[in-house]
Amino acid sequence: MPPDAARRSERSRRAVLEAALELVEAVGYARLTIEAVAARAGVGKQTIYRWWPSKGPLLFDALVEYGPAEGEPLPWGELGDDLRRELRHAVRQLEERRFDQVCRVLVHEARTDLVTLLLTPRRMRLEERLALAQRAGEIRGDVDVPAAAELLLAPVYQRWLLRTGPLTGTFSDTVVALALRALCA
Amino acid sequence: MPPDAARRSERSRRAVLEAALELVEAVGYARLTIEAVAARAGVGKQTIYRWWPSKGPLLFDALVEYGPAEGEPLPWGELGDDLRRELRHAVRQLEERRFDQVCRVLVHEARTDLVTLLLTPRRMRLEERLALAQRAGEIRGDVDVPAAAELLLAPVYQRWLLRTGPLTGTFSDTVVALALRALCA
Repeated sequence: MPPDAARRSERSRRAVLEAALELVEAVGYARLTIEAVAARAGVGKQTIYRWWPSKGPLLFDALVEYGPAEGEPLPWGELGDDLRRELRHAVRQLEERRFDQVCRVLVHEARTDLVTLLLTPRRMRLEERLALAQRAGEIRGDVDVPAAAELLLAPVYQRWLLRTGPLTGTFSDTVVALALRALCA
Repeated sequence: MPPDAARRSERSRRAVLEAALELVEAVGYARLTIEAVAARAGVGKQTIYRWWPSKGPLLFDALVEYGPAEGEPLPWGELGDDLRRELRHAVRQLEERRFDQVCRVLVHEARTDLVTLLLTPRRMRLEERLALAQRAGEIRGDVDVPAAAELLLAPVYQRWLLRTGPLTGTFSDTVVALALRALCA
């Protein structure tokens, strides 16, 4: 592709991804159509179908590329503060309409592998913080760090998915308080 | 309905439910057909459609009525033993093919309310055991018992749903060990 065409193509691709996220946030997944995405992005429907077979994969790519906005990770501070902040971020992320919509769609389409992929960065970050605490002697040496990360995140994700109770910062703080007692030396 | 017809009708209904569970275990959900259930149960297809609109609701009813076999609950013993046993039961239940198939279908069909319903008895039982321990002074008085039950079960359910790691008794024992440190006085 000549450089100009490649630039135009990349501009269209980004316009489509942004339009898809804006629309899923505005109207939800069920009422989202490829036609509406094409109109908002200012491209033809066929342009979208050339890259994505349907709205599910399109939204997944959009979410991987554009959202949700996390900003630069803050520097780590005190262990309890860090864990409470991370879990509260997780709660807010799950509450973001576009994230919620796309993730529920992926679960609905039995693409839990993609949900796992979307959730992985947060788990990795939590494992990093826990490993740091373990090296500093703040959490016991015999604690299985990946299991500890699941102990923290799973109750939050489960409340989100199964709606077993209100998903709030108060709930995630309670989980952190319980987990800290389990982990600390 | 005259008594004889009512008995015949109830016999048919139970035959259909049992046939549905046996078949989903043998062939999985995708390949399950109402025709095959009818043939195995010895009833007409129309008999099934009179009671259930499709295979999803049929399987849900079958699971509520017939499975998974838990047997009489064992008497409670030592706290750690009880929690490890309950979580290992949960692992085994999720591994049962018919349970796994039906629950994944319900998640797939976005009927997480029904999944919650299926999982509720185990959560209630765990809350009962934790409340007992709290009254006995074995776990701290300020522990939020429902949150503690989620701390125990959510990592297990999440591994099952998202397949984030092997779902084993060793993993559930690790979760209990971590949680016990969090809860105990």
